[in-house]
Amino acid sequence: MKKNILVIPGDGIGPEVTTWGKAALEKIAEIFNHEFTFDEALMGHAAIGVTGEPLPDETLEKARKSDAILFGAIGHAKYDNDPSLKVRPEQGLLKIRKELGLFANLRPILLFDELLQASSIKPEILRGTDILFFRELTGDVYFGEKTRSEDRNTASDLMIYHRYEVERIAHKAYQAAQQRSKRLCSVDKANVLESSRLWRETVQEIAKQYPDVETEHMFIDNAAMQLIKNPKKFDVVLTANLFGDILTDEASQIAGSMGMLASASVGESTGFFEPIHGSAHDITGKDLANPLASILSAALMLEIGFGLKEEAKLLVDTIDNVLKDGFRTNDIADENTNRFKVLGTAEMGKLVIK
Amino acid sequence: MKKNILVIPGDGIGPEVTTWGKAALEKIAEIFNHEFTFDEALMGHAAIGVTGEPLPDETLEKARKSDAILFGAIGHAKYDNDPSLKVRPEQGLLKIRKELGLFANLRPILLFDELLQASSIKPEILRGTDILFFRELTGDVYFGEKTRSEDRNTASDLMIYHRYEVERIAHKAYQAAQQRSKRLCSVDKANVLESSRLWRETVQEIAKQYPDVETEHMFIDNAAMQLIKNPKKFDVVLTANLFGDILTDEASQIAGSMGMLASASVGESTGFFEPIHGSAHDITGKDLANPLASILSAALMLEIGFGLKEEAKLLVDTIDNVLKDGFRTNDIADENTNRFKVLGTAEMGKLVIK
Ligand SMILES: CC(C)[C@H](C(=O)O)[C@@H](O)C(=O)O
Ligand SMILES: CC(C)[C@H](C(=O)O)[C@@H](O)C(=O)O
Repeated sequence: MKKNILVIPGDGIGPEVTTWGKAALEKIAEIFNHEFTFDEALMGHAAIGVTGEPLPDETLEKARKSDAILFGAIGHAKYDNDPSLKVRPEQGLLKIRKELGLFANLRPILLFDELLQASSIKPEILRGTDILFFRELTGDVYFGEKTRSEDRNTASDLMIYHRYEVERIAHKAYQAAQQRSKRLCSVDKANVLESSRLWRETVQEIAKQYPDVETEHMFIDNAAMQLIKNPKKFDVVLTANLFGDILTDEASQIAGSMGMLASASVGESTGFFEPIHGSAHDITGKDLANPLASILSAALMLEIGFGLKEEAKLLVDTIDNVLKDGFRTNDIADENTNRFKVLGTAEMGKLVIK
Repeated sequence: MKKNILVIPGDGIGPEVTTWGKAALEKIAEIFNHEFTFDEALMGHAAIGVTGEPLPDETLEKARKSDAILFGAIGHAKYDNDPSLKVRPEQGLLKIRKELGLFANLRPILLFDELLQASSIKPEILRGTDILFFRELTGDVYFGEKTRSEDRNTASDLMIYHRYEVERIAHKAYQAAQQRSKRLCSVDKANVLESSRLWRETVQEIAKQYPDVETEHMFIDNAAMQLIKNPKKFDVVLTANLFGDILTDEASQIAGSMGMLASASVGESTGFFEPIHGSAHDITGKDLANPLASILSAALMLEIGFGLKEEAKLLVDTIDNVLKDGFRTNDIADENTNRFKVLGTAEMGKLVIK
């Protein structure tokens, strides 16, 4: 198989971890005789420094031409500390999602047995959990009109949804549910929000086309609670952009660490694959970041982007073995971890590739 | 002390549990020689049935005249299943919050040692947690303009904040932080939302007036994760209406159950005290609801509403003793609970009052 892959390392720990996601893809190409060619591009703070723009035209062009994108992370403390800055790294990520029509963000909560102890949640509550989130990615309060009054004392963001936006992601989520345990939970705040009422109505309509799937509707506040109380209750979870952002980060604790979770954004064309963790400025450049989420992002690219199941499985199994052998990065180490087996980013990356 | 208290039982399990919050207040009046007089009023589905309105004028009038309000819960499955209904129970709750100017919702996460095991989170992670949430309650996407297009295919809610709204709750939160461990975490989504950028700017300004308090700013997605990963990290948490709704429900798992958490809404005048749990239609009328959150709401009324610390403490200590004696309602029972000590709503209520 021949594929053009664009690598966008981005900000913070992005470059450190993406190195290993890319290395994993190269290794897979070698083993399975695929031809993967790589290009690289700038986005976020890294791009602002060079071009003044969080998403340079060149990056967008390269993205459109590629078969898949491997992304790192975005964001920088400078902007977090100064809310008045007009040009911001995150605008690059939001723009590329919109421009490429990446409306469905899939976030599987993959539970490695070896990491059951790494979570703050009790192992007996976690064991057997298998959740696949479908987060809507190109609508909601993320993309609605933003205003700031002239005296700067009033600010607003429009939370808005169109029926077709809900329909297209609902179809994807229902189709996935049919392949899994046939249960889907749609999360909204329909008791307060009009956009959530449109969301719920639309999901109720689409549900009729999938009579074999059992649908439940849950309010976001309740879902945030149930996810911790009884994660096994959930299978496919379908939700809006903002609620999905919150719930999936929360759910990362189920997998032991944010450093273990990857996501696939798909939609109209090129798929976009990235860890769900952020730029983590506090540990940037310290060889402390966990590269496994980037390697798992590569696995998602192989499976969802290219339909290469066996290749993806090899990556996941390799990670499983490395964990079984007791190796950990700092974020997933616990008191019982042999301190000689706590590895830095590069050592962990190398070990998996080998 | 002489006080007029308005009791609004509301919907679902509201009436069952509020009975015991009220009984606790009566008992306290008897023991401490206070004169509490009670009136009752309708709100929510219960009020729609009788008057057609979720918040009848009569209820609002009584509320304005009272010194404090003890509320139960709101909501009904009928409306949850039919997003197109125009008159909805929750509108009553939102309207009374707005009309009474209840802009600050205080949600203390009270951890009873006896319930450490009832949580899905590991006891060693929980032990020592003591969080006080300040949730803004009369702004945000809850109250911004809602629209639905004529063809019903587009729906929106305006997420909007004015600087003064952020300032007044920030002052309350900082003042509380000064009385506690002098740490405050403000939660927003300033990397994406303009209203959050106003929020962050304003909190940064107010922070300067409280140099003895250490301020941290956190994104909501990260906060939803950290709350589970390391709850002890948090002390006073200040956040907007929607984010506060989600985070505090999530945090209820720290206390073992939503059935254990009370909240106080304060602002311009009369305080409003309620459990954070909802109407829970699935267990309504089955004598399964936990009355402790309503009794703890009564305790908050005594402490925050009337400044009666000793009286409040007696209620909390009594609950502590009942738990120490091994008594549980269904929601906080675990495998180790002696089945003869699992009580219904009424038995648990009576035991505490006695
Ligand atoms: C960086 C930020 C804009 C982004 C989001 O909120 O979507 C991130 O949190 C994510 O979840 O991908
Ligand atoms: C019932 C609902 C409108 C309410 C809210 O979202 O504020 C509830 O969840 C709460 O937290 O008090």
